[in-house]
Formats: sequence, C-alpha cells, structure tokens
Amino acid sequence: MSVLVVGSIALDTVKTPLEEHADLLGGSASYAAVGASFFSPVNMVGVVGDDFPTAHVDYFRSRKIDLTGLQVATGKTFRWSGEYMWDLNTRETRSVELNVFEHFTPTLPAGYAETQIVLLANIAPSLQSHVLDQITQPRFIIADTMDLWINIANDDLRALLPRVDMLILNDGEARQFTSETSLIKAGAKIRALGPRFVAIKKGEHGCLLFGENEFFSCGAYPLEDIHDPTGAGDTFAGGLAGHLAAQGGGEISFSQLRKAVVFGSVLASFNVEAFSLERLRTLTAEEIAKRYKSFQLMSEFEALG
Amino acid sequence: MSVLVVGSIALDTVKTPLEEHADLLGGSASYAAVGASFFSPVNMVGVVGDDFPTAHVDYFRSRKIDLTGLQVATGKTFRWSGEYMWDLNTRETRSVELNVFEHFTPTLPAGYAETQIVLLANIAPSLQSHVLDQITQPRFIIADTMDLWINIANDDLRALLPRVDMLILNDGEARQFTSETSLIKAGAKIRALGPRFVAIKKGEHGCLLFGENEFFSCGAYPLEDIHDPTGAGDTFAGGLAGHLAAQGGGEISFSQLRKAVVFGSVLASFNVEAFSLERLRTLTAEEIAKRYKSFQLMSEFEALG
Repeated sequence: MSVLVVGSIALDTVKTPLEEHADLLGGSASYAAVGASFFSPVNMVGVVGDDFPTAHVDYFRSRKIDLTGLQVATGKTFRWSGEYMWDLNTRETRSVELNVFEHFTPTLPAGYAETQIVLLANIAPSLQSHVLDQITQPRFIIADTMDLWINIANDDLRALLPRVDMLILNDGEARQFTSETSLIKAGAKIRALGPRFVAIKKGEHGCLLFGENEFFSCGAYPLEDIHDPTGAGDTFAGGLAGHLAAQGGGEISFSQLRKAVVFGSVLASFNVEAFSLERLRTLTAEEIAKRYKSFQLMSEFEALG
Repeated sequence: MSVLVVGSIALDTVKTPLEEHADLLGGSASYAAVGASFFSPVNMVGVVGDDFPTAHVDYFRSRKIDLTGLQVATGKTFRWSGEYMWDLNTRETRSVELNVFEHFTPTLPAGYAETQIVLLANIAPSLQSHVLDQITQPRFIIADTMDLWINIANDDLRALLPRVDMLILNDGEARQFTSETSLIKAGAKIRALGPRFVAIKKGEHGCLLFGENEFFSCGAYPLEDIHDPTGAGDTFAGGLAGHLAAQGGGEISFSQLRKAVVFGSVLASFNVEAFSLERLRTLTAEEIAKRYKSFQLMSEFEALG
C-alpha cells in the first residue's frame, strides 16, 4: 500500500559548529518521502523550480517514489539556510526564500486521491487541509507541524486537527501550543483538539506517543556524534508513515503505532549521522533491522516474576 | 541481604509555586533508606540534632531500618530550604544550615562493615570515601553525587570514582562534570574514570544506564501532576540499591541492573506525588508492582518478525 507525502522540497544551506554546506537537498517532503520509501511505495506532492538539479529527481526516482505529483514551476526552488549552535540542539534560521513555494497549491494528480495513508509533512496547515479536501478514502492521516504555524496560523492548525488521526510535533512546540509545561498534560490537551494519537518528539530524549488510555515512551538511539539534525523530524514522520502503509488494510492498532514510532526513530537516528539525506542514500534494510533490534535491547527489562 | 545507606538527614522547608511546607523530613539518607526499605533491610548511617522529632525516628523504625548507625548530636539538625520555579524543573536553594551535619563523620557501628551492598547517598565525596575505608566485603558500591561536589570537591570525587561500581548523577551534572553536551559521550567519559556503571537521571525524560558495551534507556512514568520533586533522585537510588540487595549473592548482571533502574524510577515517581516522604508512607508493594507493570507497558514494542 502506498503512502502519500505532501510537503516542501528545498535547497538548504546548513552550518554547524564544524561544517557548512550549501545547496543541499532538503525540505520536509524530501526527507519524509525518502524515509517512507524504505518501507512502502510513495506518492509525492511538492513543487520545485526550474533550477532544481536533475540528480535529485533521479534520486527520488531511484527510491521508487512516484513523481507524478511533483510540480516544476518557472523560477527558483525554495531555499532555506540555518545555523546550529554549539550543542546542535538549538538552531537559527538565517534566511528563507520561498520562491516557487510561495504560490504552491498541493493539487493531487489522478490516482493519488485514493491513497489511504497520508503524511501531511510540515507545510502551512491551510495547505494540509487542502490536501485532505481531495482525499477520498482516508484510512490514517498524519500531520506534522512546527512552531511557525503555531505562531502565525494557529486557527488553521486547530481547524486541521479534528481531520487527522495523528499529530506529530516536538516538545517545545507541544508546550508552546498548549501552554502546559508537562508534556503529559500537553499530549492530552492536543488529543482533546481532535487527533486520536499525538507523537511528541524529544530529540535526544526520544519520543512519547499518546493514545486513548495508551502511552508509549520510546528512547533515542545512543548516538555519540550528530552531524546535522536537519530533517530528523521529517524522516521520523516518513519512516513512521511508511511502516504503517506497509502493514496493509484494517484498523491500525496501538501496537502497530509503537513499531512505527520505533522505525521512525531508527530512520531519524541514521539521518542525523550526515548532512542532508546523505546517510539515507547508503542505508540498507539490514542496517534498519539491526538498529531496530538495538532499540529493543536498550529498552527491554525483565517482567516481574 | 541488607543495604547500607549513608547520607544526610535533614529538616526541609520547601516552596513550590502552589504550596510551602516547613520542617519536613528530608535529606539524602532519609529518602534513600526509606526507598530501599521497600525491598530489603537497611542499615542507616547519618546524624541528627537533639531537636529531631521522635516521630521521624519512629517512622524509620517502622520501615525496619536499623538505626544503630544513627548519631544523635547536641545541637540542631541539618536544615535546607529550597524553592521550585514555575515548571518544577529548576530550583533555588534559599538557605542551608549545616548545624550538627558540619562535623559529621560516618563511622560504621559494629556489624555494618560487612554490608555488601552500599549506597553512598549524596554527601561530600571525602565522607563517601571514608565509608568505603571501613567496608570489608564490598560487593556492589553505588555513589550518588551532585553539582555542589563537582564544583567544590572535584578531586575528592575523582578519587572516589575508581572505588565505586556505579555513579548516579543527573543530566546537568553529567554535562558539567565531563564538559560534554552529549549524554552518551558523558556517560562513557565517566565510566572511564572508574565506575563500571553510570546512571544518568533525566527527570521527566527518564534515565540512561551505561555499562561496558551495554546500554539501557528507561522512560519516566507519565505523571500529570508533580507536587514536590525533592528527594526524587535519592529515592531512585534507594529503590535501585534495595532491589539489588534483595537479589542475594553472586555477580550482579546488567539485566538485574535494568530491573533495579526501573524499580528506582517507580519509587521516584511515587515520591514526587506529595511533599517530603508523605507518599512513601502509604505506598504498598502492590502499588509498586502495578506501576512496574505500567513501565513495561509503556516501554514495550513488538520484535521484528
């Protein structure tokens, strides 16, 4: 079963305390689609300018990502530039050039409307809603968001929430959105706004998954060296959605969601090992399975006798 | 098998954004000994002044804590006063009166020197070393510490580390001690200083346990309301040590340590539900077992097929 991924496609310039690289493949849809492609076929919707390197298009194709929904507009591709502080936990956006992304309307091509698993990667909530207007057989809808939309499109985000099954956001965003310091209270408050499930990403501290009377706490893989955190959240969402799509039909259980969160965490942990999507380019199914087992080893403890 | 607990005994005044209480039973040894007492007999070493309420002594006795090592000195009991900020994560010490604690020397009474499981709860590292000088059959030595000793007794702490099996400290302290932002690097660096195992407590994010080629990531119990974080770390250490003492003889495995970390986390999660040791006064073995199972439910996910 395919997953539909809608989001941004960008050329990024990223500076860390040790390195700086320009014109990297980036954007929420790029990371999410490639992340999902390790598990299931992907239908991708996004926009690039006529300056977008063919090599990147070829890379998407090589991942068996359907690009019927990729719009190529006259003008320049969306560009983002950011800098990470010394601890790689905080970052500052240095510049944003929306370019062709400014007038992006995510119109689904024929055949995409029936996709049952939908990942609304990080874009404006109004665009995410516009995608849902076109979906005819929704089975599990996941939306990612960010602080920007909580600040400037709060009403749009709240209008979107009753229409999605799962919202993904990070700990700072969850606190900002709910005015709660406790993530446990924040998770419950967001669920009350609509989504049956909420995933709160905590970076080096892992991820919390909230359901109705169900809760999953997933640790983070113990990486000693992180090279570029860009796209970790998008890759997480992509891996999660891709795993769900690979499960076939029927109701999605909390047990499946737990596995999906672990797969998402595994993908994200690989992604931060190198700039852009470089680590995903060489990633193998064997490496994913091995790290999934490491997650299990690091999380397990004996039951009471 | 008994556990030896050495540390401070205090009368605390604690202010949170919502409440303030004075003259509460506190101190690292109080929390740790009571925490351990849910699992094993405890030998306790500490000092109180002649103003120390008999009711607190009676409470320790009711927990089957051996008080042969409790020194009663002329003067006032150690007093600490602290205030928690709005998010309950940061606290400021408002006042410290060492009183009889200033000249405390942890001398072990007859019979204590043979205790095999030793918890050096949070006191000056030189005093912790002094306890170890008296121990004749060390089997597993755990030391807890804090930022104060990293700042003012760094050499003493470093001298202690090769003599202990496990160091417990929190995330901020681990970063401060090692000058590493990555907790994974910090854990490895501390292990290189002596202890075979390092437990880094992360408050609401749980706990990381580092061993040689082994790693355990334990989540935190999803509490919506925390009333008083005071003593959470001491209770964690006490529960952990008490569980190990209850395991009987032989080499302590990483698998036993995982369970011990979970039991410590369970105890700590109860402790923060009320001021001082109030919640521990009513805590039952059934409640502990039930929450241990909750930890399992919140941590587990399916293996790969």
